[in-house]
Amino acid sequence: MTDRPTPSAPSGRPASSHGPSTGSPSTGGPPPGVRPQASLPEPSVIPEQGWHVGHFFYRFRRDQLDAPLSAEVCQQFCAALAPSDELMPERLASYWTSGHEADFGVIVMDPHPGKVNAIHQALLAPGIGRWIEPAWSFTSVSEVSEYVPSVESYRERLIRQGDAPDSPELAAKVSAYERRLPMMNRNRLQPDIPDWPAACFYPMNKSRVPGANWFTEPFSLRNQMMAEHAQSGMAFAGKVSQLISVGVGLDDWEWMVTLWGRNPEYLKEIVYKMRFDEASAKYGEFGPFYVGYRADGREILDHCRMTG
Amino acid sequence: MTDRPTPSAPSGRPASSHGPSTGSPSTGGPPPGVRPQASLPEPSVIPEQGWHVGHFFYRFRRDQLDAPLSAEVCQQFCAALAPSDELMPERLASYWTSGHEADFGVIVMDPHPGKVNAIHQALLAPGIGRWIEPAWSFTSVSEVSEYVPSVESYRERLIRQGDAPDSPELAAKVSAYERRLPMMNRNRLQPDIPDWPAACFYPMNKSRVPGANWFTEPFSLRNQMMAEHAQSGMAFAGKVSQLISVGVGLDDWEWMVTLWGRNPEYLKEIVYKMRFDEASAKYGEFGPFYVGYRADGREILDHCRMTG
Amino acid sequence: MTDRPTPSAPSGRPASSHGPSTGSPSTGGPPPGVRPQASLPEPSVIPEQGWHVGHFFYRFRRDQLDAPLSAEVCQQFCAALAPSDELMPERLASYWTSGHEADFGVIVMDPHPGKVNAIHQALLAPGIGRWIEPAWSFTSVSEVSEYVPSVESYRERLIRQGDAPDSPELAAKVSAYERRLPMMNRNRLQPDIPDWPAACFYPMNKSRVPGANWFTEPFSLRNQMMAEHAQSGMAFAGKVSQLISVGVGLDDWEWMVTLWGRNPEYLKEIVYKMRFDEASAKYGEFGPFYVGYRADGREILDHCRMTG
Amino acid sequence: MTDRPTPSAPSGRPASSHGPSTGSPSTGGPPPGVRPQASLPEPSVIPEQGWHVGHFFYRFRRDQLDAPLSAEVCQQFCAALAPSDELMPERLASYWTSGHEADFGVIVMDPHPGKVNAIHQALLAPGIGRWIEPAWSFTSVSEVSEYVPSVESYRERLIRQGDAPDSPELAAKVSAYERRLPMMNRNRLQPDIPDWPAACFYPMNKSRVPGANWFTEPFSLRNQMMAEHAQSGMAFAGKVSQLISVGVGLDDWEWMVTLWGRNPEYLKEIVYKMRFDEASAKYGEFGPFYVGYRADGREILDHCRMTG
Amino acid sequence: MTDRPTPSAPSGRPASSHGPSTGSPSTGGPPPGVRPQASLPEPSVIPEQGWHVGHFFYRFRRDQLDAPLSAEVCQQFCAALAPSDELMPERLASYWTSGHEADFGVIVMDPHPGKVNAIHQALLAPGIGRWIEPAWSFTSVSEVSEYVPSVESYRERLIRQGDAPDSPELAAKVSAYERRLPMMNRNRLQPDIPDWPAACFYPMNKSRVPGANWFTEPFSLRNQMMAEHAQSGMAFAGKVSQLISVGVGLDDWEWMVTLWGRNPEYLKEIVYKMRFDEASAKYGEFGPFYVGYRADGREILDHCRMTG
Repeated sequence: MTDRPTPSAPSGRPASSHGPSTGSPSTGGPPPGVRPQASLPEPSVIPEQGWHVGHFFYRFRRDQLDAPLSAEVCQQFCAALAPSDELMPERLASYWTSGHEADFGVIVMDPHPGKVNAIHQALLAPGIGRWIEPAWSFTSVSEVSEYVPSVESYRERLIRQGDAPDSPELAAKVSAYERRLPMMNRNRLQPDIPDWPAACFYPMNKSRVPGANWFTEPFSLRNQMMAEHAQSGMAFAGKVSQLISVGVGLDDWEWMVTLWGRNPEYLKEIVYKMRFDEASAKYGEFGPFYVGYRADGREILDHCRMTG
Repeated sequence: MTDRPTPSAPSGRPASSHGPSTGSPSTGGPPPGVRPQASLPEPSVIPEQGWHVGHFFYRFRRDQLDAPLSAEVCQQFCAALAPSDELMPERLASYWTSGHEADFGVIVMDPHPGKVNAIHQALLAPGIGRWIEPAWSFTSVSEVSEYVPSVESYRERLIRQGDAPDSPELAAKVSAYERRLPMMNRNRLQPDIPDWPAACFYPMNKSRVPGANWFTEPFSLRNQMMAEHAQSGMAFAGKVSQLISVGVGLDDWEWMVTLWGRNPEYLKEIVYKMRFDEASAKYGEFGPFYVGYRADGREILDHCRMTG
Repeated sequence: MTDRPTPSAPSGRPASSHGPSTGSPSTGGPPPGVRPQASLPEPSVIPEQGWHVGHFFYRFRRDQLDAPLSAEVCQQFCAALAPSDELMPERLASYWTSGHEADFGVIVMDPHPGKVNAIHQALLAPGIGRWIEPAWSFTSVSEVSEYVPSVESYRERLIRQGDAPDSPELAAKVSAYERRLPMMNRNRLQPDIPDWPAACFYPMNKSRVPGANWFTEPFSLRNQMMAEHAQSGMAFAGKVSQLISVGVGLDDWEWMVTLWGRNPEYLKEIVYKMRFDEASAKYGEFGPFYVGYRADGREILDHCRMTG
Repeated sequence: MTDRPTPSAPSGRPASSHGPSTGSPSTGGPPPGVRPQASLPEPSVIPEQGWHVGHFFYRFRRDQLDAPLSAEVCQQFCAALAPSDELMPERLASYWTSGHEADFGVIVMDPHPGKVNAIHQALLAPGIGRWIEPAWSFTSVSEVSEYVPSVESYRERLIRQGDAPDSPELAAKVSAYERRLPMMNRNRLQPDIPDWPAACFYPMNKSRVPGANWFTEPFSLRNQMMAEHAQSGMAFAGKVSQLISVGVGLDDWEWMVTLWGRNPEYLKEIVYKMRFDEASAKYGEFGPFYVGYRADGREILDHCRMTG
Repeated sequence: MTDRPTPSAPSGRPASSHGPSTGSPSTGGPPPGVRPQASLPEPSVIPEQGWHVGHFFYRFRRDQLDAPLSAEVCQQFCAALAPSDELMPERLASYWTSGHEADFGVIVMDPHPGKVNAIHQALLAPGIGRWIEPAWSFTSVSEVSEYVPSVESYRERLIRQGDAPDSPELAAKVSAYERRLPMMNRNRLQPDIPDWPAACFYPMNKSRVPGANWFTEPFSLRNQMMAEHAQSGMAFAGKVSQLISVGVGLDDWEWMVTLWGRNPEYLKEIVYKMRFDEASAKYGEFGPFYVGYRADGREILDHCRMTG
């Protein structure tokens, strides 16, 4: 996959400047008084690590809808959610959603931001777009969090928790972690979507109010709280799978949480349980929640009565 | 009732994956580094305990309405609120509502989330849907709260309140509680809707601000505050009946409160009285309130002048 | 006036249950584990004390308006604000309002909530309703506040303020208060609307933030602050008349304040002066303010250029 | 100018009661238990002191606009901003505004609130009104603030600042202030609009949060902070001119600030500088800001591309 | 470039007063009691220092869009983003944007506010304007912040950081800074737009809550925090370039941040890293974030499926 995969996606570099007064390579430089680093990668929209992640939620627009959508428009809708190979992003899953805020939602992941947003634009393209109203979205990227322990810090944590420094048990645990880590990180950067029926989606911040300011706490304390928080989540292994992607600098919240559940009640249970963890209880600020049930385009149209 | 009761409801499992890159059972697993539990139930959208609960509020859309709704559209509206047996959820009640935010509201409960949301979708289906605008909704599930005392903790509480440990009075009270508990819990999970004319609906959170953080208080203190809170409510026995359903992980507030009143003044009185309980006064955060009066589809249409 | 005064108003009791699964008298009972009180009034929508109060604010919808409203539609508008005797609620007054939020507003009071809301629905009925957009509303009930002193507590307050317990002056004051109290309370429950040109309307809460939590203060302190607050208001006798109605459990704010002014500057002055009272300065949270000038339907249409 | 200057403006008194149940002079009286003051002015909408002030901001509505506005509609727009002598309020100025919130704004002042709001209604009247969408407005009245020093308190302040009580310098300063004060107060109540190209408009509150509650501070401290604040403003004499009008009881914010600038950079500078004054830094809460550039109707239409 | 460069832009001075009651030069004077400064520049809309900066974000309006935009309308769109030399502002760059809030955005800079806003108005002009809905905007001006060290304060800082006062190293650093400063300040006032593919945009305030009030901190402390903050940014030289423009007095937030990135991941990284700086962690309040990818008009239309 290249930097410019599809005709409708933007190039990794501006194709043209807009008149002589806009920036040019010779003038668009570093901030004043700062020398650029020795060697920098070529400008690109593709992260060195991680994928662009888009969450999109929609309502059908009904104020001018007198009849079910035509077969042609239904077909266009389904095609937007199941694009051809060339336009297919690395990950795509769709859900009908509960309540009035949205009728359905989509999660999309790809190295190229234009390929992610192209799914959104396909749902709003002339034809089907007239009948669909965007309700909410979130733009983020996948990453390996700074709180994921390195092999060495994992070893130190086990020792703090009681393992003897020279014990074979410790060595075995560390060795296992070292073997698992690459796969675990790949799963953080390029997660697979589990084949479960329910999911919930919500953004969050860490608070910065006087008396509960996450960003003025030392790393060691934040790291410890995040480890406890992770421990809470492990009780739901096999019941809930998660993706935490980063919206800092890209969208209105700092993180986006995606939880896939074997049963919707596990979604309720894990969020309730984790809310008592100090990292959430004291520092978590939560945005809108959406709960969805896995469905392809045709199932969404049927559930929403858009078909004749 | 099965996991997939109606054609338009989603299956308990994703019917298909969207292309080769989406998740599959072999890849969609637990969070990294975590072993799933020995035996897990089949993926399903139906909770093991409790029902899905939907609260939906609507306005009639009048900006293109030149005449009363046609008889056919009125009929479609009434049918959406009184579906056929096959589509009828376990509970359904409708209300006209006071004020400009909504003209009417519906509460729906069922084990299957698709059957709950299908009532919402039927009200927005082509035909009637053009004339109805969703105003607010809340998605939750019924549950037995962690603050409902077990038989043993009920006994301990009575002793703390002065009952002698070996007294026959204590034994009688505990025995009565033990007999009532299953029915009480059934009423929490599958509540009946009382035949009273008024109801109010509002969501709430427990606050997490510095100085009033519910989620950092110990269970014992939270439990005691909830017991006092329950005591306040008991003064309204016969006047007000309640349902507390859980939105944690599913919608924007943590809980949804439904109060049914023998008279609307009792709704005002109970909410005012309970606001002085520490659990509410210090920790309660309240969302929008809707007050409604029980009415079937035809009565709603008549009250809202939608009929000729 | 009966419990069911108009055809389009809802009955005091649900006219029908919606299928076999909805609530019935035998199942819709008290909260679990609670015995109802010995004798309870019949279910009704009419409060034992106080009236339902509706405040409604509207904008004319102009995005499709090419010409003045037709004479027929103007007539419908005026009729909605001056209904026939049978539909006329106990109190009704209308105002044109200043600014972009609303073009006009209505205050309505009646024992029956359906009769109050019927005024709102008449303004939105097919014909005129297409040209009117609800902007804001508030649902409340009139009441005698818990801070209104009883005869005995009034006597005690005077003694605390320096009256000699056995003085004839004290006896005379108490006796006068005793004679005035029933009329004063009637005016709180069923207030007359003064014949003054200006009015302002706004909702309010008492704050519950850490450091300024009204609901955790003892009654004695709240009572004292409310007495001081009332004292502030008395300086405006003859200039401003007020109605405080209760929205707790019914709408998004706890109280609704209606101030009628002999001159709009008195509205500004009283609100500014009272904001320094501790009850407001420390604990008052205020919602949107609307200022209106008394006008009947024709005057509203003329002021808003809706007539040809 | 009389109390009822224009046909479309409301009378100072309600022209009619709405049926027998609405208020009448004999029933609409003072608050319960309070004797009205000896002599009160006639009910009126015209303040004894100060003018009604309206700030109105608008967007052109473009979702149905296929072509420039017709010459007739353009003429109606210009006439609404330049009414005939009879309808002309005491002050009126219009501005095109920067950004997406509004395309243009108007400030209007007059003793009669109906004459102020009539400008707003003329812009929304059938014809032009279809193409204009109100974006924001604020309703206030001009006044002489309680923090404007009297001659005596001005003298005391100078002495506190070092002037000798019996010095001829002090006498001269006090005498000059005494001569200036009536004109200064007239300028506060009936301000002229300077002939400068830029202006900014924003509402504000004084905060009442725990730890920064303006309304619980003693007058002496508030007065001192306001004097320092005024001092900051004086550095901008000749660059910025201001109007502070009062919205308390009339609109959602307590004060409305209008700053006229000889250059828009002075608007930025004065607001930035004053934000460090304790009165603003600690107690100021600010609403939306609009910046505008003086323009008549035709210039607004041209700038906004509404003309052919 | 003059004060009145284009026909549709407003004049630097009001072209006419609106009737005899509006302000005139003889009456519109300084605030009461204040003598204007000796010599003041002519009234103008052009700042003595800095440029007007406009950020504009838009959605395509699709609720009436049945087919791709016509070639004529597409041409009008492209022309609005690439105006003729006469109308071309000093800087202009456009981006397609990720997510549902906006489809595309534009940043514009020019000494004349009318020339900046004319780009916005051209995008909303009859023809294309019907299909475009403004989503957000921000109005600001470029400036040299008070925290940019003068040569002398730069020297003092270096000494505090350990340089010997008389060392040739210090002299060399100071001399280099002195040479760079004019260019650096020009880049702050008239920044070039780098030729990189990604950018993010967000407004911010400095908090004034009790316990974290930026505006009550002494300059020395604020200056020190800003210096550390600048240090954080320098680590991204060559990866990220920034513009901080000022909205104080002009729009709803105090500052507008524009970050141009060589790769979108650097945008995430720099914002995340800087959030731990005390200036942000404790005092920063952030508004909506938009992320965009450089694209000209045709590329935006293609990405958004507006072309046939």
